Amino acid sequence: MFEFDQDTAIDGAGGGTWTGRISGRWALGAIPNGGYLMALTARAMADALPHPHPLSLTAYFVKPSAVGPAEVEVEVVKKGRRFSVSAARLLQDGGEVLRMLATFGDLSASTGPTRVTAVPPDLPDPESLPDGGDPGDREVTRRFDFRFTPESIGFAEGRPSGRALVEGWLRFGDGREPDPLSLPVFCDAFPPAIWNITRPAWVPTLEMTVHVRALPAPGWLASRVQTRALMDGRLEEDCEIWDSQGTLVAMSRQLALIGSRPKGGERPCPTPSG
Amino acid sequence: MFEFDQDTAIDGAGGGTWTGRISGRWALGAIPNGGYLMALTARAMADALPHPHPLSLTAYFVKPSAVGPAEVEVEVVKKGRRFSVSAARLLQDGGEVLRMLATFGDLSASTGPTRVTAVPPDLPDPESLPDGGDPGDREVTRRFDFRFTPESIGFAEGRPSGRALVEGWLRFGDGREPDPLSLPVFCDAFPPAIWNITRPAWVPTLEMTVHVRALPAPGWLASRVQTRALMDGRLEEDCEIWDSQGTLVAMSRQLALIGSRPKGGERPCPTPSG
Repeated sequence: MFEFDQDTAIDGAGGGTWTGRISGRWALGAIPNGGYLMALTARAMADALPHPHPLSLTAYFVKPSAVGPAEVEVEVVKKGRRFSVSAARLLQDGGEVLRMLATFGDLSASTGPTRVTAVPPDLPDPESLPDGGDPGDREVTRRFDFRFTPESIGFAEGRPSGRALVEGWLRFGDGREPDPLSLPVFCDAFPPAIWNITRPAWVPTLEMTVHVRALPAPGWLASRVQTRALMDGRLEEDCEIWDSQGTLVAMSRQLALIGSRPKGGERPCPTPSG
Repeated sequence: MFEFDQDTAIDGAGGGTWTGRISGRWALGAIPNGGYLMALTARAMADALPHPHPLSLTAYFVKPSAVGPAEVEVEVVKKGRRFSVSAARLLQDGGEVLRMLATFGDLSASTGPTRVTAVPPDLPDPESLPDGGDPGDREVTRRFDFRFTPESIGFAEGRPSGRALVEGWLRFGDGREPDPLSLPVFCDAFPPAIWNITRPAWVPTLEMTVHVRALPAPGWLASRVQTRALMDGRLEEDCEIWDSQGTLVAMSRQLALIGSRPKGGERPCPTPSG
């Protein structure tokens, strides 16, 4: 069993409630990754709904989470022929960590016109880029293989590029292939693009929405993360994920804050020099 | 009292419930505008929360709405010092039309760094562009003054530009100035950009999120609406709104479907030649 599946495993407790555990393996310091919390919550939604794939997932973050037991309360809002809609709450010790909404459907049954002008990042072969892994205590970065373009992680070498852009390849480190439920984690895996403008600092998320656009093929994923407007300490971060066949499989946007610089030597920066 | 304020007026009914009316003035044919439904629902959320401005608003659309009475049930998820989080349901005849989540805050109290690389559309003066109003029965288009670039509405003249892009100016037709609560309506006011690729057809929305990035100044708003990926009949539509001072005031994204061509001569196309 792969790490992602172990760490999003849930048990139905009846009455629309599932129990699980927020694993420390997807945390940066003490802070669990937001995309991972969305995937864990979505796992319970998927259990409750007739359609197999999330098409859209939205999380509003309410309070910080911690490693340890968690509950998911799922409400089925609608079971339609083509789509289901669900709301869910992720709880720890009775307190709400996040609220989610999602629409599920069947990506393998989608039909209709296709016209894509979005283009994947222009990346060298992943094997030609340095391993972007992190030997430090930032657990979440050990879950992935990263291959960043050098400009993307200039901030890690004290040479921020001046462009709020991070591009590169990624995949799970243990060989698990991507699927729709794991895409929120991939959308939230790269370091914040704004670190190439500001100094590394926590970037707490208020809201994050992931649109799953297609079933991902096995292999490396190419990703582009960028911020175009940091205003009064608030920023959007957009992520696109392309699979190994060059298909756009996810688009996400989050609204986040530039937080304080971490204390006590705990650094948010998941980079080779970290 | 301006049209927008009349048509989003609500009465507190106690117990976390507000009553209002879905006005026919914001409908395209029989279909109320999604951004208008979000604004109506957000009005009740604002009534229930201590913070004045929506920072992020997300709607998941559950079933078609109709002109007539409506109820909004508001749940206060969190009242924090800087932010509040709320969930709401818009109901008609006891059936749920949409489910919303929102984070509210105070845009006038925001502080922090600013760095914006996003650029507004390069538009000629609004007075130099033709009036984009619609003399037909598409009520919602009468609520606005539109000034589109000619390429943007090529589809209306049988000359779709081949680019899923609509740019132009807009403002309320009755002189009401923009504010944070009205921005969802502005984000959903232009015709779908995809009509410059496909033929005009209904574009039902599954999910829409609006990020309010700043308090809008009075006057014309500049807007850019674009779609970069239509895949198997599903598309994202991104909108940016810039105020008369050149400040980015809203970014929105929706996930939508290419629907069927309307029947019975009812045309979705809100254009001069409509």
